[in-house]
Amino acid sequence: MNTFGRIFRLTDFGESHGEAIGGVIDGFPAGITMDSDFIQSELQRRSPSQHFHSTTRQESDQLRILSGIVDNLSTGAPIGFIINNEDGKKYDDAERFAIKPSHASYTYHRKYGFSDNEYFGRASARQTACRVVAGAFAKLVLRKIETAICAVDISNPQHVPGDDSVGALIACRIQGVPAGLGEPVYDKFHARLGYAMLSINGVKGFDIGKGFDASQMTGSEYNDAQKADFSYHSNHDGGVQAGITNGETIDFRVAFKPIPTIGKVQRTIDFDGNPVVLDAQSRNDRSVSPRVLPVVEAMAAMVTLDFILLHNAFSHEK
Amino acid sequence: MNTFGRIFRLTDFGESHGEAIGGVIDGFPAGITMDSDFIQSELQRRSPSQHFHSTTRQESDQLRILSGIVDNLSTGAPIGFIINNEDGKKYDDAERFAIKPSHASYTYHRKYGFSDNEYFGRASARQTACRVVAGAFAKLVLRKIETAICAVDISNPQHVPGDDSVGALIACRIQGVPAGLGEPVYDKFHARLGYAMLSINGVKGFDIGKGFDASQMTGSEYNDAQKADFSYHSNHDGGVQAGITNGETIDFRVAFKPIPTIGKVQRTIDFDGNPVVLDAQSRNDRSVSPRVLPVVEAMAAMVTLDFILLHNAFSHEK
Amino acid sequence: MNTFGRIFRLTDFGESHGEAIGGVIDGFPAGITMDSDFIQSELQRRSPSQHFHSTTRQESDQLRILSGIVDNLSTGAPIGFIINNEDGKKYDDAERFAIKPSHASYTYHRKYGFSDNEYFGRASARQTACRVVAGAFAKLVLRKIETAICAVDISNPQHVPGDDSVGALIACRIQGVPAGLGEPVYDKFHARLGYAMLSINGVKGFDIGKGFDASQMTGSEYNDAQKADFSYHSNHDGGVQAGITNGETIDFRVAFKPIPTIGKVQRTIDFDGNPVVLDAQSRNDRSVSPRVLPVVEAMAAMVTLDFILLHNAFSHEK
Amino acid sequence: MNTFGRIFRLTDFGESHGEAIGGVIDGFPAGITMDSDFIQSELQRRSPSQHFHSTTRQESDQLRILSGIVDNLSTGAPIGFIINNEDGKKYDDAERFAIKPSHASYTYHRKYGFSDNEYFGRASARQTACRVVAGAFAKLVLRKIETAICAVDISNPQHVPGDDSVGALIACRIQGVPAGLGEPVYDKFHARLGYAMLSINGVKGFDIGKGFDASQMTGSEYNDAQKADFSYHSNHDGGVQAGITNGETIDFRVAFKPIPTIGKVQRTIDFDGNPVVLDAQSRNDRSVSPRVLPVVEAMAAMVTLDFILLHNAFSHEK
Repeated sequence: MNTFGRIFRLTDFGESHGEAIGGVIDGFPAGITMDSDFIQSELQRRSPSQHFHSTTRQESDQLRILSGIVDNLSTGAPIGFIINNEDGKKYDDAERFAIKPSHASYTYHRKYGFSDNEYFGRASARQTACRVVAGAFAKLVLRKIETAICAVDISNPQHVPGDDSVGALIACRIQGVPAGLGEPVYDKFHARLGYAMLSINGVKGFDIGKGFDASQMTGSEYNDAQKADFSYHSNHDGGVQAGITNGETIDFRVAFKPIPTIGKVQRTIDFDGNPVVLDAQSRNDRSVSPRVLPVVEAMAAMVTLDFILLHNAFSHEK
Repeated sequence: MNTFGRIFRLTDFGESHGEAIGGVIDGFPAGITMDSDFIQSELQRRSPSQHFHSTTRQESDQLRILSGIVDNLSTGAPIGFIINNEDGKKYDDAERFAIKPSHASYTYHRKYGFSDNEYFGRASARQTACRVVAGAFAKLVLRKIETAICAVDISNPQHVPGDDSVGALIACRIQGVPAGLGEPVYDKFHARLGYAMLSINGVKGFDIGKGFDASQMTGSEYNDAQKADFSYHSNHDGGVQAGITNGETIDFRVAFKPIPTIGKVQRTIDFDGNPVVLDAQSRNDRSVSPRVLPVVEAMAAMVTLDFILLHNAFSHEK
Repeated sequence: MNTFGRIFRLTDFGESHGEAIGGVIDGFPAGITMDSDFIQSELQRRSPSQHFHSTTRQESDQLRILSGIVDNLSTGAPIGFIINNEDGKKYDDAERFAIKPSHASYTYHRKYGFSDNEYFGRASARQTACRVVAGAFAKLVLRKIETAICAVDISNPQHVPGDDSVGALIACRIQGVPAGLGEPVYDKFHARLGYAMLSINGVKGFDIGKGFDASQMTGSEYNDAQKADFSYHSNHDGGVQAGITNGETIDFRVAFKPIPTIGKVQRTIDFDGNPVVLDAQSRNDRSVSPRVLPVVEAMAAMVTLDFILLHNAFSHEK
Repeated sequence: MNTFGRIFRLTDFGESHGEAIGGVIDGFPAGITMDSDFIQSELQRRSPSQHFHSTTRQESDQLRILSGIVDNLSTGAPIGFIINNEDGKKYDDAERFAIKPSHASYTYHRKYGFSDNEYFGRASARQTACRVVAGAFAKLVLRKIETAICAVDISNPQHVPGDDSVGALIACRIQGVPAGLGEPVYDKFHARLGYAMLSINGVKGFDIGKGFDASQMTGSEYNDAQKADFSYHSNHDGGVQAGITNGETIDFRVAFKPIPTIGKVQRTIDFDGNPVVLDAQSRNDRSVSPRVLPVVEAMAAMVTLDFILLHNAFSHEK
C-alpha cells in the first residue's frame, strides 16, 4: 500500500519522528546517466528553507543513494535511498491529546488505534521528499525523449491574515508526451494521473483540459478538431482522448485545501471527547505552494514514465 | 489493464461490434444472497431505452451469470457474466474514415494501428454495463452494513440547440461508510475513488468535499472541527481526512465533457490528413446523464467494498 | 486471485455445475493473426474424449471468442471467451456427504463453508481448459519468434490394477527462449515457472535442470561452462542462471499425484465426522496424462510471453 | 519486481558493492510487539561468521530499523530498514573478465549489458539478509497464533574434496497453520510457497508432501483419509489439498544446487569469448547450508502471514 506505480515503482517509508525517511525505486532502466546535482536541486525546491512563507525547520534533505548506481550509471537494480531526519519534530503535551481539525489526528486514531499528532504516522508532508526523489529519477529518463513537466501556482492572491493558512490551485503541463500512452478502460492516462495527484497530502480536486468547465460546454464548442498535419485547433481535452495521449500538451489542475495547522486558536475536542482549545500553532507553512510544485511534477513524471515503459512492452510486437 | 480493484476486482471484455460483453468479478465474499432483480434494475437504469434523450438503440442488457452463484448464494468463486449485444452497431463508410473530433478515433489509431470508428475498440459506453453489474454486486454487500450510494445530476440547465450535446456535472454521496478506510499515502480513499471516476468515459474532473473551492479558502474557514460525540460541525473534507474515512458522508463531484458525437456538421480530417466534413450524426444521446448515474455509483461501490475487504485483512490482528 | 500473469494475464471463471466456463485474456499484443484451428486443437488435446484411459464424459469444448479479434487479427483489446458445459456433472446423494480423501471436499468446506463435492467449486480439472486457451494464444506470439514448447510423460510404467489411479511425471522443454528474461530476485524465470506449474491441479513438485539431483552433486560436476561461441558444454542449470534465461533450452519436470477419485472402495468420514464408506467411483481418468500435457505447455507459454513483454518494456531504453 | 508478497510485502534493494542493503516491509499489522533480539538472532543464523564451513568475510549484519516502530510497537506504517555493508567485496581484474560458470556473470551481461562479476548486481547471497529480516517480522505475528516453522538440512553427507562445493537438500515444516488458507486456482498455498522457495538463490527444485515420489504412487496408497476428529491417517499431501491448507503440518523440500564458486581451477571464457582459466577461488562457503535455513523459514513465514491476512479480508463477511 506504500508502493506507487506498475512498472516504474516507488515504495517508501518513514515518519517525522524517526531517524530517516527513504524508499526503493524499482523498474528504473539500466544505463541512465545519474545527475546528482539535478536530483538534489529538485529536493531543494521542496525544502522549507528555500521559501519565504515556509517553516523555519531545518531540513537539509541530503539524499544518500545506497544501491542501483555504479560509475554514475543506473544498473537496472532497485535504487535504495534514505534522507536523514536531522531535526525531528517535537510535540508538547498540550498538542498531543487534542484532535487537530481536518488533520490526520482522528482518522489515524480510528484506523490504527493511535494518533498521528504524535508524529508517528505517515501524514507528514515530509513523506513527499521521497516522491520528489523518484520523480527526479523519472525526469532523467523523460528528458532523453524531450518530455518536460512544469507546475505553477495559479491561486488567486487574497488578503488573508498572517495567522491563517490558504489553499492553493496548481496548474501543471507535461510537454512532449508521445501519442498512444494510456489504456482505454481503467488505466486511462488521466485516471492514473489523477490518482497520483489525489494521493498528495491536502489535494481535494483534479481536472484535465477544460476539466470542470467542460461540464458546462456543448459538444460543438468543446470538440478538438485536427488540421491536415494532425495537430489540433484546440486542446480542450488536455492531451488525452479516450484515455490515450494524443501528442498534445497534457494540462491539468490540482486543488489543495488550506493547511490545517493555523496560527489561530481553534476549538476542538480531545480523544476522549472533551472540549479543548488548541493553541495557535507556529512553525507552519502558510501555503503548500511553492513547495508542492516539485511534488506535483514528480508524480506526473512517475506516471508518464510508467506508461512509457508499459507502452514499450507491446511496441516490439507490432 | 482491463482489471479494476485490488481485492474486490472486475476484469471485463467486449466491444460494440461483437457477440457479447462480459466480465469476471473476483474477490466477492461467499455466502451473500443474490438479488437478480436488483442487479437487473441497476442495468436498466443505465439502459438507453429508459431515458427520454437517449439513443433509440435497443439494448435489452439481459445479464447471464455463468458461475459463482449456487442456490442464490455466492460461493466465493469468481462470478463470470455476459450480456449479449443484440443490436450490434453498424457504421457507414463515410463515418469509417473520418477522425471524429474528441473521440477515440485518433488516439486508438496511434496506439493500436486501427481506428475505434469501426467499433472494434473499448471506448464505447457499452463497456460501462460491466461496471454496473460489478457495482450492483458490491452494493449487495454494502447494504448489509447500511452503506448507501446516491448520484444525482447537478448540471446547470442551459438552453442548447437540439442538435448539440452537453456536458454533465454529477454529485455523489456515500453514506454509512465506516471510519478508518483508506491508506495514508498512495491509496488514500479519495485517490482511488478519483481514479475510479476518472476511468469512466468522458470524465474530465473529480473533486471531494469542498474540492476546487477549497483552494480559495482559508484554514480557519475550512477546518472541520468535531463535537463531543465526535460528529463534525462541518464536512468540508467530504468524509476523508489524511486519506482515511472519518465516518462522515463521502461527497464528491464528477465532471463529464459533452458527448463528442453531435447532430451538427463538423470539419475534420481523415486518417490520411485530408480535410473531410463529418455529417451530422444521429442516434446519439445528448447527455451522459441520467444513464451515467448508476455507473458513478457502481464505481463508488466497488472502491468502497475493496477498501472494506482490505481493512478486514488487518482488523483481526488488533 | 483468479488472475494469472503480470502483463499477459488470464482471469477465468467457471465450475462444472454451471452453464459455461470462460475467461478474459488481457495484455495480448495487437496485430497477431488468429489461428482458430490451432487453438481448438490444443483444447482437443486436453479433451477427455480423445484418450483411451480418460473419462467418457462428453466435453466438446467448443470455444467461443467474444471479443478482441476482428478480421482474424487481435486488436489489443481483452479477449473474452466461453466454453459451454454441455454435460454438467451430476452427483448422487451418497457422494454428496462423504469427504473424498485427498480431494477438495474438506478444504473447501473449511474455507467457504460448503463442499466442492457438489461441483460448485473450482477444483475441477475442467478449469484447465481456460489455461489451455490462454496458452494457445500465447503460443501464437511465441511461434513468431520460434519459441517452441513440448511436454512429455516420463512416468515409469507400472503394473497397477485397473480400479486404481496413478501419478504422473511430466518433462517439458521450452526451446528458443531469448537470453535475458527473468528478474534477479523474486521474479526469477524459474520461480514464476514453478509457481505456474504448482498451480495446476494435483501438482506436488517442480524442478528445473538437474533439479533435485543437483542437491547431491558437487560444483565441479555441476557447473555449466561455455564455449567460445557462448554455447554451453552442459545444461545442468536448465537454461536459467541467477534467475535469468541464458539462451539454452529450458527444461523442467512437474510431478502429479495420483488422481484422488478411484475405482476402489475407500473408508472416510462425512462432514459431521461419521465414518462412511465411499463407493468405488466410475467415470474417472486413471491418470492425468496425457490430458495434462497441453496444460503444462500452456502455463509455460503464458509465463514465457509474460517475461518477453516485460523485457520489452525496458529494451527500448538501452 | 523487487517486491515479494500481496498484502504482507517486502521490497528490498542493495548489492555487495554498496554502502548498505535494506528494504521496506509493508502490510505489517499495527500493535505487534517488537522483539529486536529475536530479529537480530535470525540475522545471526544467516551470518557467515557463525558457521564452520562459511566464508570468513565479516558481516556483522547490524539491523537498523528506520520507521514503523514506536515504543516497541508496530504502528501500521511501513518498516524501513538498512544493514550496512561493512566489508564491501573487492574483485581482482583476473576475476572481473571471466564468465564464472553457472553464475550470474553471463545472464546479467545479456540482460543488463554488464556483468555481475563486478558485484554490481543483485545475485549475491547477501540479499537474503533482507528476506530474513522480513521473515522474522512475519514470525512475530505467526507465533501469536502458534504457527511455527523449522527448516533442517537432509542432504546425504558425501565425501567431497575440500576444494569443491556441494548442493543441499532442505526440508521445512510449518506447524499450526489454520485450515482454509490458499486460493483454489492460481494462488494455491503451495504454489506461492514454491514460488517463494524457487526465488532463493541456487534453488532448483521444490516439492510438497510426498512430492516427486507421489508421481510413482497409486491413489489407494496415496489418498489421505480422515478420522472422526477430522485429523488425518496420513499426510501425503503435506497439509495442502486442492491448494487450500487442511490444518495438518505443511511439509516441503527445497533443493539447492552446489555453490558455483569453487576452489578448483575452471576452464571458461571471457566476455569476448576467449578461453580463460578461472583460478581457484577462495573465501567461499562450501555449502549454502546451514546459512540458508533461516532464509527458507523466512520465505515460508512471509507466505503464511500473507495468506492469513488475505483470509482475514473475507472472514468478516461470513
